[in-house]
Amino acid sequence: MTAQQVVRAVVAVPAVDRAPRAIGNLLRAADLPLEVEAVCSGDGIGLVLADGPHAGTVATLREAGVRFLACANTLSGRGLTADDLAEGVGVVPAAVWHLVRRQHEGWSFLPL
Amino acid sequence: MTAQQVVRAVVAVPAVDRAPRAIGNLLRAADLPLEVEAVCSGDGIGLVLADGPHAGTVATLREAGVRFLACANTLSGRGLTADDLAEGVGVVPAAVWHLVRRQHEGWSFLPL
Amino acid sequence: MTAQQVVRAVVAVPAVDRAPRAIGNLLRAADLPLEVEAVCSGDGIGLVLADGPHAGTVATLREAGVRFLACANTLSGRGLTADDLAEGVGVVPAAVWHLVRRQHEGWSFLPL
Repeated sequence: MTAQQVVRAVVAVPAVDRAPRAIGNLLRAADLPLEVEAVCSGDGIGLVLADGPHAGTVATLREAGVRFLACANTLSGRGLTADDLAEGVGVVPAAVWHLVRRQHEGWSFLPL
Repeated sequence: MTAQQVVRAVVAVPAVDRAPRAIGNLLRAADLPLEVEAVCSGDGIGLVLADGPHAGTVATLREAGVRFLACANTLSGRGLTADDLAEGVGVVPAAVWHLVRRQHEGWSFLPL
Repeated sequence: MTAQQVVRAVVAVPAVDRAPRAIGNLLRAADLPLEVEAVCSGDGIGLVLADGPHAGTVATLREAGVRFLACANTLSGRGLTADDLAEGVGVVPAAVWHLVRRQHEGWSFLPL
């Protein structure tokens, strides 16, 4: 139905609770090549803090290929910087724009 | 603007409350051919249980062409099986993957 | 990656609280031409009422190019009419169908 061979999904993570399990379910169920970005903003930023309780989860999902991104608007609003993020977590200027731009590029969108 | 003649929408149903009315509103307002799948997960699974209070609603929406799907992750997490579902309700391995794959295939996405 | 030169985003506004700041963040972060529609339904209708506390915010965002739309289902359900809306706010028959149709036309979708 589509010529695009790889499914790409940008996942909005506005809170921590459901995210790790939902992303795990997504990876396990995919029966096509799948690329995933998880964009953490608001309270979801707690998922990707270096000293947070979820560092192990994030490391495991990163090894499975998930790219984690933090919203710079959230970071500055909470007095945080990129130095507070777990290893390998990227930063986007605004989660809202990243989610819109990725869909424009053909990515699927999954809000958690 | 697009060569696709039929609009297809995959609806995420994570809770029962708003879903029946929202899906009804969607069907009534559509002025193009519309195909709808409602993917029930989490508490939304209550919408499609055979012995639940919404069996009549689901039957009516099914007659209007809506396809109902239950998330297998939710079923197993709640000790349910396909036998607990209302007539004609399908099962997908994971709601999250189904929502992503449908968008990859060109379907619109509507979270409720 | 796409031939479409303008990014178009349809924003679902089901509540007032986050919407003004999120839409402002979206406009500020966009580094491609961006067209935005904000579809207000449910409690989000409060954003676009003529006598509401957000009329100034809406006027500012309209000047920045955002098109505001109110859901007719919400209006009639609350005993409101188009006369109750701030200047320049349009009406769509159903928010749910507008969000689906816009995605069918290639617009990105951002729920707030």
